[in-house]
This record gives sequence, C-alpha cells and structure tokens, in this order.
Amino acid sequence: LTSEARPQPDFDAKGLAKLLLRSIRSGALATLDRETGFPFASLVTVATDLDGSPLLLLSRLSGHTLNLEADPRASILLAETGKGDPLAHPRLTVTGEARRDPAPRIRERFLARHPKAKLYADFADFSFWRLTPAAGHLNGGFARAATLGGPDLLTDLTGAEALVEAEAGALAHMNEDHAEALALYATRLARAPAGAWTATGLDPEGLDLAAGDRTARIGFPEPVRDPGRLRWVLKALADQARAAEPA
Amino acid sequence: LTSEARPQPDFDAKGLAKLLLRSIRSGALATLDRETGFPFASLVTVATDLDGSPLLLLSRLSGHTLNLEADPRASILLAETGKGDPLAHPRLTVTGEARRDPAPRIRERFLARHPKAKLYADFADFSFWRLTPAAGHLNGGFARAATLGGPDLLTDLTGAEALVEAEAGALAHMNEDHAEALALYATRLARAPAGAWTATGLDPEGLDLAAGDRTARIGFPEPVRDPGRLRWVLKALADQARAAEPA
Repeated sequence: LTSEARPQPDFDAKGLAKLLLRSIRSGALATLDRETGFPFASLVTVATDLDGSPLLLLSRLSGHTLNLEADPRASILLAETGKGDPLAHPRLTVTGEARRDPAPRIRERFLARHPKAKLYADFADFSFWRLTPAAGHLNGGFARAATLGGPDLLTDLTGAEALVEAEAGALAHMNEDHAEALALYATRLARAPAGAWTATGLDPEGLDLAAGDRTARIGFPEPVRDPGRLRWVLKALADQARAAEPA
Repeated sequence: LTSEARPQPDFDAKGLAKLLLRSIRSGALATLDRETGFPFASLVTVATDLDGSPLLLLSRLSGHTLNLEADPRASILLAETGKGDPLAHPRLTVTGEARRDPAPRIRERFLARHPKAKLYADFADFSFWRLTPAAGHLNGGFARAATLGGPDLLTDLTGAEALVEAEAGALAHMNEDHAEALALYATRLARAPAGAWTATGLDPEGLDLAAGDRTARIGFPEPVRDPGRLRWVLKALADQARAAEPA
C-alpha cells in the first residue's frame, strides 16, 4: 500500500492556490547559492502585484539577494500555519525568475501590505523585486496536490488599466471613509475575527484586507475591470455582508 | 545609510542556532528541481538525530524526494514564528546533502518527535532521510546574522556510545515514571506554558520535550556521555526546577 491509494477528493486547486498567494505575507524563498550551487532557503516577506506576481523587498546584505543577482531562478513557499500536523495545512510553491522592479506601484503595494517595512525600505541596500510565476505546485493537505501553470496563478489585467490606475485612490477612500464596510467584509464574508481591518490592495479578482498580523481576501463575484464597476461591486458586497449572519 | 550601519549586538550564534535546530519541528526544504534546475521550496516536518543532523520523512510521491534522488544538495529553513514582523524572529538555514538513512534509531527519533506520522510512515512510498549539515546561516532577527560551519551545528558524540544506546530506554522511563519532572523542566527551566510534556529525545547536550504542538529544549550544564551521568544531571535539573520560581 502506498499513500497513492488514499482518496484524492476533488478540490478547486486554482482557487485555493490564488487564495494562498493573496493571503500569506511571509514565506521561504529558495535561491541558488552563487558560490556552491546548493539550493538556499531563507525567510522573506511577500506581497503581490495586481496580477498576482509575488513581490519582495530584499537587502543586498542578504545572501539570497546576491544569489538572485547571479541567477534569477527562484521559488517561494507560501504555507498556511495552524494547529496540529503542519502537513495537513495547504501550501503553495511558486516557481519563476525574480528581478528588481523599480515601478512605484510595486513599492506602494508592498508597503501597504507591510507597513512596518517603511522603517527600512529606504536603506540603500534594499530594493523591490518581482517573481514572475512560471509554475506552481499546490499541496492542499494530505492527498490533495496539483501542478499549475503560471497563468493559473495570475490575474488577467487585460482591459483593467483604469482599475490599476484607480487602485491607490480607491484604497485610500475605503480606508478613510468605509472602515465599517471593510470590517463587515472581513468578519461576515471571510469569517475572520473582528479587528481594525484595512484594505491593502485590490485587483480585478478581489480585495486584500489586513488587521495587525491577520489577513483576509474577499473575492469578487465577477472580474472587475473599471472603477465604476468596482464601486458597484463593493457596495453590493457590503449589502451582502450586512445581510449575513454575524459570526 | 545602509542597514549595515545598524548595531550588531554580540549574541551566542552557535547556541541560538542549536536551539532552533533542536526546537523547530517543520521547515522549508530547498531542493534542485530534477527537470529544470530551479530551486524548489517545499514544506517538511523535521526531527534531529542525536548529533543534530536534521531528519526527514519523505514520500516518493512528492517532487522534493525525486529531486533529492537526482541531486542530494539541499537546505532547510527553520524559522521561529511569532507575532509582528516575521523578519524580527530568529531563523536558521542548514545546508548539506540529504540521503536516505534506514537506521532504526532514525525512525525512532523521528516518530518520537512526530507521533502522528506513525499513521503514514509505513506506506511504501515513505522513507527516512538525514541531511548532513555542511554549513549554517543564522539570522537572529534584524542586524544579527552569522555564518556557521557544519561542526558548529553538530553535537559531538565521541565517547557517548553508551548514552546513544541508552536513549530509548531512558526516554521511556522518564515518560512513564517522571512526568512531574518533565513538566517542571518545561515550565520552570524553559519557561514554557504548562501542558502534558513528554520527552522526545536526548543527546549529550540536552533533552527535547514536547506537549502537543509546543516544544522545549533543556540544555545540560555540561556534556553528558554516559547513562550514569545522565541520571545525575536529570536529578540535579529536577532539583533546580523545583527550587525555581513558578512562572
């Protein structure tokens, strides 16, 4: 008997992979040691670009950064933590090439997700990096695994230029004027605990929330590509959340 | 200004590295993808041999196992988790070559540390592996880092053959007859919360304890190489714990 004989229940591999990608804020980066060629695992904090590409803030004083300068091949393990056997919880490995990305939006999205990183993001040895997903491997817990392509992990931004442009303003507006709606999204739609929930990012497929160390992701019922539709969807989700049972 | 300008306080790098190695039960394994050469990060559960070598229980249905069969080069990231910025917590990367190890002791130590793995350890696709540490990289939190050699991480077993031989019996005896002492070690010496503490391993430098998902490590005041001295040291530590203030 091998563990292959265990049941492989159907599950939404792409949906779970994207949820992990959008929810988990730190992970293990694997790079190739520039001197020995050994694979090197190190801890990093992670955000995502609007398309879902993992974003990193790395220091040249860290070996992994010098490794990526010598060879961009990398992967990131994003693992859900929880009680009991860690292997019973879902995790995703995203494989791809990592390169510096000086775009202001990268910086804004990363620091919105990791506000404490503002303390060191401007040190001269730090820079922002993007890992472009080429493949994904999802392990959904025992006996549930899936190999994914880069496009399975990414969010299509075609036709969403106006939404991309409006993101920072929309987030600021929601955080300033709609804190109650954000808390309802988190507690009643994502079933997360009560807290000081803020919006940290949005993209055509959903809204990223954070409260201290916690995160939550609210998926949109349909892809949203322009700011007018975004307002409509956020309003509809707030109505839905108000009508939902408190946790 | 770079982050190099920040203070580098003195700290016991070897002691902290060994504590992480002996305390953390899951980590990120980095292997070399057998098809693409990309570094691949995946989640594993970890125990240690008496000498401190990381031990793994891997399935041939997982890519990392096939990767190691093709190229034994690997590293394991062991990261302490906690509140706030994950980068503020200490973590250790152990680099080395990983190979199957069928020794019965490897199996016993691993399953003592991960009792739930008994459910699947006997599936035909699973086998036990040992990573022989060649180097270590410790990051003790911001601005505290150290590069270590394999010997810095390992526990010298020279002259400790009788202790190695006696380990399983000593653990069984302590778990059966000295649960109160184990709880005192954990709560008063390691300052861990109260719980159903059991002993999962011992080696010349200390005793590994676990209670559910929690672990604790009690260092011996001097290296212990024979069972007679072990009894004396465990008794002295119990007296010391009884005399210590409750948490």
